[in-house]
Amino acid sequence: MSHQSTQQQRIEALRDLLGAANVLIDQQSLTHFGTDWTRYYTPAPLAIVFPTCIADVQALVIYAAEHSLALVPSGGRTGLSAGAVATDGELVVCLDKLNTIDAFNPVDGTLRCGAGVTTGEIQSFAEREGLYYPVDFASSGSSQIGGNVATNAGGIKVVRYGMTREWIAGLKVVTGTGELLDLNRGLVKNNAGYDLRHLVIGSEGTLGIVVEVTVRLVNPPAPHSVMLMACPSMPAIIEVLKAARSTLTLNAFEFFSDKALDKVCEATGWQRPVQVESPFYALLEFEQSDADAAQNLYAAVASQHWASDAVMSQSIGQAQQLWAFRERISEIISHWVPYKSDISSVISKLPDMLAAIDEIVGRAYPEFEIVWFGHIGDGNVHLNVLKPEALDIQTFSERCGEVNTWVSEVVREYGGSVSAEHGIGLLKKSVLPYSVSPAELAIMRGIKASFDPHGIMNPGKIFD
Amino acid sequence: MSHQSTQQQRIEALRDLLGAANVLIDQQSLTHFGTDWTRYYTPAPLAIVFPTCIADVQALVIYAAEHSLALVPSGGRTGLSAGAVATDGELVVCLDKLNTIDAFNPVDGTLRCGAGVTTGEIQSFAEREGLYYPVDFASSGSSQIGGNVATNAGGIKVVRYGMTREWIAGLKVVTGTGELLDLNRGLVKNNAGYDLRHLVIGSEGTLGIVVEVTVRLVNPPAPHSVMLMACPSMPAIIEVLKAARSTLTLNAFEFFSDKALDKVCEATGWQRPVQVESPFYALLEFEQSDADAAQNLYAAVASQHWASDAVMSQSIGQAQQLWAFRERISEIISHWVPYKSDISSVISKLPDMLAAIDEIVGRAYPEFEIVWFGHIGDGNVHLNVLKPEALDIQTFSERCGEVNTWVSEVVREYGGSVSAEHGIGLLKKSVLPYSVSPAELAIMRGIKASFDPHGIMNPGKIFD
Repeated sequence: MSHQSTQQQRIEALRDLLGAANVLIDQQSLTHFGTDWTRYYTPAPLAIVFPTCIADVQALVIYAAEHSLALVPSGGRTGLSAGAVATDGELVVCLDKLNTIDAFNPVDGTLRCGAGVTTGEIQSFAEREGLYYPVDFASSGSSQIGGNVATNAGGIKVVRYGMTREWIAGLKVVTGTGELLDLNRGLVKNNAGYDLRHLVIGSEGTLGIVVEVTVRLVNPPAPHSVMLMACPSMPAIIEVLKAARSTLTLNAFEFFSDKALDKVCEATGWQRPVQVESPFYALLEFEQSDADAAQNLYAAVASQHWASDAVMSQSIGQAQQLWAFRERISEIISHWVPYKSDISSVISKLPDMLAAIDEIVGRAYPEFEIVWFGHIGDGNVHLNVLKPEALDIQTFSERCGEVNTWVSEVVREYGGSVSAEHGIGLLKKSVLPYSVSPAELAIMRGIKASFDPHGIMNPGKIFD
Repeated sequence: MSHQSTQQQRIEALRDLLGAANVLIDQQSLTHFGTDWTRYYTPAPLAIVFPTCIADVQALVIYAAEHSLALVPSGGRTGLSAGAVATDGELVVCLDKLNTIDAFNPVDGTLRCGAGVTTGEIQSFAEREGLYYPVDFASSGSSQIGGNVATNAGGIKVVRYGMTREWIAGLKVVTGTGELLDLNRGLVKNNAGYDLRHLVIGSEGTLGIVVEVTVRLVNPPAPHSVMLMACPSMPAIIEVLKAARSTLTLNAFEFFSDKALDKVCEATGWQRPVQVESPFYALLEFEQSDADAAQNLYAAVASQHWASDAVMSQSIGQAQQLWAFRERISEIISHWVPYKSDISSVISKLPDMLAAIDEIVGRAYPEFEIVWFGHIGDGNVHLNVLKPEALDIQTFSERCGEVNTWVSEVVREYGGSVSAEHGIGLLKKSVLPYSVSPAELAIMRGIKASFDPHGIMNPGKIFD
């Protein structure tokens, strides 16, 4: 039987299973649904399928197990590590049609919904009920809750609210044998055996397909203010963070380098937000009732020379404008096709780790501009090395391969993580060993075999 | 080679490994270190060993793997499900000597310490630094942090602060092959592969021996007040909880039945705290600054007939006295050798679940007194069936076996957990299938095999 006819038979079988309208094989769909925001890979899936209920997903997995067909679960495809990319004839299982909000329970403060509901829809639903879903990031309009769970999505409020992991009260997951696991069922306290829920969170579809999620909602935070502060050094920023944590209710504590601010002001024509030029800037979001405390904080850190200037928002509009200096960086520097990394360490080691990376990259490639920004309050920074205009992309890419290795070595030396929030996917498989020991990797493979004995669940992601 | 001489050789080998002073085989030690607070099992370990460093633990595990010697990790032995009991010639690995506080980092807000440091020592250390470790329970003076992690200990502040799981920033664990895993290393953000840290938390020593723990500390809570409220029914208590959650900063929300209060007043001679007799009482601990809001809360719930009387503490002493009505229950009812269960459901289903259990037990055994109390704010209740004075313990015990099955069936029907906070150990293995599906259990066995291929890590606990 030829490859071609096998493929055709499989597509017919999938149409029988799900209905012809739920199986797409046109080139545009294969390209659109076969990749995520990573863009470095060429999508080449067999087909795209749209299960319309949990039983559909189970039937699909059982079919896939019988026919050794690899499955790639697909949510909003806003990932940055190619966790949802299908490059090799896989079947993309698109969760878009599991998109109902099934149950809101005001007593338990929980919301149960299909994996295909977007993060933004959950945020809006919570708001209508006078509550709040606190995981938030740039892509929340299109990212789906199933994908948030699979990648343990972080974002801009982690300092106060933690990662997606903290908000998941229950999960339904279809394993690689087609079994449906109903994990934790919304309970607050449940010490009955190993917590498989936490194992599935962040497993990037390699253990099973998340089909239903129960999230916790909370009372909304009080109105906030934003302060932007000019700081002379990374150690100074850490001192500001330390002082701020003990006096303010912080929602966010971000930072960016002067180079990042330069690029934003240049591209937008905006005035610099503070008079003094400084190597680094800290952006603090805190409850409005802490405004006086924030003034005092600035006076205290300024007297220690940990900050040399500051501006505080006096309105929602001003708060948004100050945030814009931080939020626009990524898009604006994309012009220089930057080499990006998403690394973390414990906060106390960040200044030394960043200095070590600066030094190594600066010594080897003095012509490269380095732009730093990120979520310093939770130890997560984004390194961006910009391509000099004159350098061809091929050479730049090769040199960045070296940079990648050096950065990973420094991160290991400081006990950090090579993936703070973006996950591993395909993109970071080669650097995973810098943050995970051979013994841990062996255990992870064993765990995968327990959930997915046929090796059909997003194979090749995280590890081979 | 006889069994006797094998045993002797093993003890000699252990003395060579650890030094003779760190190997105990006298009967008193075997009995003392071979059991926990469960008391239903007869301890019969081979020996008790006291590793003095992590390398000792690794050497022990490698020796045990070579000689198929089962290991039982042992912390403060305050567990209530026989997770730390050695009944069958196991080697008890006592972590008492891994008791150093290694590193406090004020920037990261973390404390790294040996597994044998007690929960109370961590609380005291935090207090001296102006900080707070929020996991607290009756046994915190003797329970050890390694055991807290192994059992994901809960306690009385879960409503506000969650379980032990929420406070673990890093873990060092020796697996069943003697490998040392250094998990999460204190990081806030780390999406590099599966989160093995969360898998080890709550695994009751079956995946490895926890040897070092890094906990997070927080700013201390504001001073608190306590209110005790008489409520006519469980649904009324849930309404009070709902109202309290949206208006007060709750540290704790406990409840107990009138029967429980009766027993406490009878045993202590204390006056009832409120005038009105009522089927149930709610105990609320909240920040003192919420005292006016608490008064308003009472007025609002009383007008709805969800509460008929209340008293609020006006001093620390009064707050303690109100807590004492709740805290003394367990010890006082122990006179009636109660059948105990530690169950949970989502909060919205608790009233129906409790009523169903009351009804089944009451119908079958109308002569049994039932005492309810627990942490209702997090869905965790403790059922206590008292032995009638006239009934012999053997017959009572047999009937409680039936009760156990009925309770587990009701818990399953309501999607609850047969072990909210005490874990499974030996004691609850038979009821685990009421909260965990066969597919989940098969995956758990696979996970155990990945960590512990020789089956030497606390075998027979959680599942066979």
